[in-house]
Amino acid sequence: MTSDETLRPKARAPRGFQDRRAATLIAERAILDAVSAVYESYGFERLETGAFEYADALGKFLPDADRPNEGVFALQDDDEQWMALRYDLTAPLARFAAENWDSLAKPFRRYAFGSVWRNEKPGPGRYREFLQCDADTVGSERPEADAEIIAMAVQGYAAAGLPAGACTLKINNRKLLNGLLAAAGVEDTGQKLAVLRAVDKLDRLGVDGVTALLGAGRKDESGAFTKGAGLGTAAAGSVLAYLGAGGGGRQATLDRLAGVIGGSAEGDEGLSELGKIGEALTRLGVTDEQAVFEPSVVRGLEYYTGAVFEAEIAFAGGEGEKLGSMGGGGRYDDLVARFTGQRTPATGFSFGVSRLAAALAAGGAAAAKVARGPVVVLALDNGQMGEYFAMAAELRAAGIAAEVYLGTSGMRPQMKYADRRNAPAAVIVGGDEIAAGTVTIKDLDLGRALAADVSDNRAWREDRPGQVTAPRADLVSAVRKIVEAAG
Amino acid sequence: MTSDETLRPKARAPRGFQDRRAATLIAERAILDAVSAVYESYGFERLETGAFEYADALGKFLPDADRPNEGVFALQDDDEQWMALRYDLTAPLARFAAENWDSLAKPFRRYAFGSVWRNEKPGPGRYREFLQCDADTVGSERPEADAEIIAMAVQGYAAAGLPAGACTLKINNRKLLNGLLAAAGVEDTGQKLAVLRAVDKLDRLGVDGVTALLGAGRKDESGAFTKGAGLGTAAAGSVLAYLGAGGGGRQATLDRLAGVIGGSAEGDEGLSELGKIGEALTRLGVTDEQAVFEPSVVRGLEYYTGAVFEAEIAFAGGEGEKLGSMGGGGRYDDLVARFTGQRTPATGFSFGVSRLAAALAAGGAAAAKVARGPVVVLALDNGQMGEYFAMAAELRAAGIAAEVYLGTSGMRPQMKYADRRNAPAAVIVGGDEIAAGTVTIKDLDLGRALAADVSDNRAWREDRPGQVTAPRADLVSAVRKIVEAAG
Repeated sequence: MTSDETLRPKARAPRGFQDRRAATLIAERAILDAVSAVYESYGFERLETGAFEYADALGKFLPDADRPNEGVFALQDDDEQWMALRYDLTAPLARFAAENWDSLAKPFRRYAFGSVWRNEKPGPGRYREFLQCDADTVGSERPEADAEIIAMAVQGYAAAGLPAGACTLKINNRKLLNGLLAAAGVEDTGQKLAVLRAVDKLDRLGVDGVTALLGAGRKDESGAFTKGAGLGTAAAGSVLAYLGAGGGGRQATLDRLAGVIGGSAEGDEGLSELGKIGEALTRLGVTDEQAVFEPSVVRGLEYYTGAVFEAEIAFAGGEGEKLGSMGGGGRYDDLVARFTGQRTPATGFSFGVSRLAAALAAGGAAAAKVARGPVVVLALDNGQMGEYFAMAAELRAAGIAAEVYLGTSGMRPQMKYADRRNAPAAVIVGGDEIAAGTVTIKDLDLGRALAADVSDNRAWREDRPGQVTAPRADLVSAVRKIVEAAG
Repeated sequence: MTSDETLRPKARAPRGFQDRRAATLIAERAILDAVSAVYESYGFERLETGAFEYADALGKFLPDADRPNEGVFALQDDDEQWMALRYDLTAPLARFAAENWDSLAKPFRRYAFGSVWRNEKPGPGRYREFLQCDADTVGSERPEADAEIIAMAVQGYAAAGLPAGACTLKINNRKLLNGLLAAAGVEDTGQKLAVLRAVDKLDRLGVDGVTALLGAGRKDESGAFTKGAGLGTAAAGSVLAYLGAGGGGRQATLDRLAGVIGGSAEGDEGLSELGKIGEALTRLGVTDEQAVFEPSVVRGLEYYTGAVFEAEIAFAGGEGEKLGSMGGGGRYDDLVARFTGQRTPATGFSFGVSRLAAALAAGGAAAAKVARGPVVVLALDNGQMGEYFAMAAELRAAGIAAEVYLGTSGMRPQMKYADRRNAPAAVIVGGDEIAAGTVTIKDLDLGRALAADVSDNRAWREDRPGQVTAPRADLVSAVRKIVEAAG
């Protein structure tokens, strides 16, 4: 190793950060465009805040000198204040709303697309920077504001290309279980949290597992014991009845829930809110298949105060592949109050863009678009570079993406380049063509198809299928014919 | 102050970071869409790298424990490696190209839109986070690659909406002045840099000022003395002749330059490159007005090695307002070599998106679009919320953005809200309308116009101009009539 080599940095991206290329970006942009159009049709205004927030404004986190990077990417500004890259789009919205409250038209409704950063251990498919899309309404306590957000999510996913039936919005209200527990005399915060944790495991452990966790506790297959919430038989029975109240359409669920929850003030409030959400959803055209009330939905974040919702994706393929939760949200009435001291009702929904793109790809819907390369004009004669550029310009003026090969390699590497760019066609103008006043155009898609199908590809090479020679004046029309056939 | 208040964080964005709202984002998105379409028509592939790079990969900067934030936002990862937010889009491209060199189709041509971060003192209009757009070709030494980039810039600005003639690409080649100085026997690096600095001041100080700075030095009006480059009379004369060679179309400038530069190997190389750039530009349809050769263009960055170019914006208004440089670029053959040790020719162009948006607004071209609000359905009767939601859904299904007012205020604040949202119309359905099976639609643009024009606005209020009442079944057509009139 020479001393020069030792000075060279190694070219590598930081751990957990992605380089995204054309195919990914095309899929993301299609999602952005489709969802933006839906959200704007509801009157939501786009907002982008800066990448940094002051750490105290982010809330969940106050850095100290020893561990400034706990969960977020934080650094100290030159005035000694700690700043951190946003870890979601909700905290910056709360800051923005509080900062501009007096001048905003209220309720304030905004949507945002943007990167968020999490300083966590990266892994396969687990990045430290990823794109989120959020829509929130700040300053409305009406349950109809929740319904609107849910309807937008339903319509946004459909506009992005999720097939009908692939996505279900599952809606619940924190007040139901709170009311039930209050009626059962459960007041202890630790006990309530243990109940929530047990409920949250219904999908994974089933009714028996949850029953055990609501009571004394549960021993898993490895023999490890998890202490339970310690509910009495009657209270545990109520919780299980509550968990079983879903299914059969929103109104049927509501009717069943009323039988279980009825009696506590908070439970009745939750029921009334769900009723209003249900009516607004129906009037917005959201069907019982698109959005259901599901009592087992918990949502982890502590800041939710009322309605909660999450989007579950499942494709009715051979085995009904379940992709799980793809986005979620709910009502968080206390986030803006951190700044202003005044309770400010808010509700919102958030989803990860890559996750939706993956679901779209899995559903075989849109987004399977391969990044199509431009037509490549080969550079075979240095004296003709001007002519090659003029040909590319003519093609572009006719709406056909085109480029001149800009390296200095021979014909074979140039054809390989065109193939790797996924070009639909190559324009070949060498000595023969120049002398004859013609252009040769090679159909690369046809060549690819033949190469894939024919075991002895010498045959099609000799026949030169998919290759036409046309007068120079007919360049555009001859290329267009091949490009349009390629699609 | 209660103890509760002292715990509350102040809602404020970090210094130098912007919250961008709808009007700004609409203008930026229009630029992004227009420029992307042009760049993709040239076969450039979109790429987005992560926000962070390892500090050693950023190059200009190696942090030490004492001053980790010099110029960039840097922090130490949990494996002790320093990372920094990218301060431009070129360094991440160089890292990406070096990291993926073997698997890329070469020459590799990509464009990128993205935020960059500079840890500098913020000021009015000077942010620490801003959007850049870059296009670069890596792996081509052909001067035609520079021409292509220049043509894309010309066409990109036009597609974004800059009026014809507002933008001139000024092109130069570092090799010309280098060759001239070599021929004049100037070898000292310090002396060469002093000449570059003097040349760079032509715009500000004029020929006399530059002449002084090429020689012994210059005393400014305050009496302060700047030491000159110390060139002899003959050499200084050559530099001045070189600086005066511009104007009259690209070929005329080239001819004049040949007379001044001729003789040195490096100068001849520069001339030959400019000649090829000029021919390709012509064949690409770039006129002598859109792109000129201008010997005084220097471009500050040290990494440029050949052709350099910058975009200058001037509007032929009353006094021919000059907005100055709006973007620039050039050939940088050594950036990728930092990683690989192999010289990798590259060229690119970069512009700031906000600056272009400001130029577009100043030019009165596009982008003057005000963010148009949705139609607002007033919430006048709590018992009718479902009906209001159904009306909004009908409007949206007909392609008209609409929302239901989601607060709990009375009619007057609701009308004020609709006005502040810049809504074209408000849908008013109270007790009278419900009883009659009608809807009332208020034309808010007309109301705004009248309020602006009529000193006694009591009159139009009583006449109720711009307000129609229609059968409920005609909601969509009645609203559409008003929305389309509003434009």
